[in-house]
Amino acid sequence: MSADQLDLTFAALADPTRRAILARLVGGPASVTELAAPFKMTLPAVSKHLKVLERAGLIGRGRDAQWRPCSLNAVPLKDVADWVGSYRRFWDESFNRLEEYLREVQAAPSQGADDEPDQSPTGAI
Amino acid sequence: MSADQLDLTFAALADPTRRAILARLVGGPASVTELAAPFKMTLPAVSKHLKVLERAGLIGRGRDAQWRPCSLNAVPLKDVADWVGSYRRFWDESFNRLEEYLREVQAAPSQGADDEPDQSPTGAI
Repeated sequence: MSADQLDLTFAALADPTRRAILARLVGGPASVTELAAPFKMTLPAVSKHLKVLERAGLIGRGRDAQWRPCSLNAVPLKDVADWVGSYRRFWDESFNRLEEYLREVQAAPSQGADDEPDQSPTGAI
Repeated sequence: MSADQLDLTFAALADPTRRAILARLVGGPASVTELAAPFKMTLPAVSKHLKVLERAGLIGRGRDAQWRPCSLNAVPLKDVADWVGSYRRFWDESFNRLEEYLREVQAAPSQGADDEPDQSPTGAI
C-alpha cells in the first residue's frame, strides 16, 4: 500500500460516524437512508462521510442508480493492521513495565509487614 | 479508549511525516533538530507535527527546556490494533475469495485442454 493510500485510510477512520458506518456494514449492505437512521444527521451529511469512506476504498457502492447500496470493503484495513502491528513489541514493553511496577508496588507493603513487623509502614519507604 | 482518543490517534497517523517520525523514534529518543534532519522541512513545521503526535499521546517530550527530546509512546497504537483486528475476518474472506477466483481462472484452461481436447477454448465459457 502506498503512503497516500494509508493516509486516506487513517483519515477516513479518524471519525466516529465513519467507524460506526463500517461497523453497521458488518451486518451486510445498506442504503444511505438505512445508514443515516441511527445518526442525527441529514442525508447529505451522511453522503459526505460515505464519499470519504469510498475514496479510501473502505466501502463499495452498488450500480443501481436508485438504491446504490453500500458494502464493506475491509481490504485496506489489512494494511493498517500490518502497519500498526510493527509497533506491537513497543506497547507490549510498556504494558510489561507497568505490570512489573504494579507488582513491585503491591509486593512492597506486604513484604514489610511479613519481614519487619515492628517497623511502621513508613519505614518501607 | 474513548472515541475521541481513537479519533486523535487515527488523525495523527494520517500523515507520512508523522508516521516517519514514529518510525525514527523506534531507534530511541531524539531532539526536534534530529527529527527534522531527514525532512525538507523547517523546524516550526516539524514542531507542528510533533504537537499533533504529542496530543494523541503517541510521543512524550523530555522536561529539559533546552533539549526536550521526543520518545515513542506506542500504547495508543494497541487500541488501533484492537479496533482494526475486529475486521480481520472480513479482509481474510476477501483474500480467500480472490485466491479461490485465481485458482479457478488458472485451473480452467488446463482442465479444458486435458478433459475436452476437441473443444475450442471458448467452449468452456
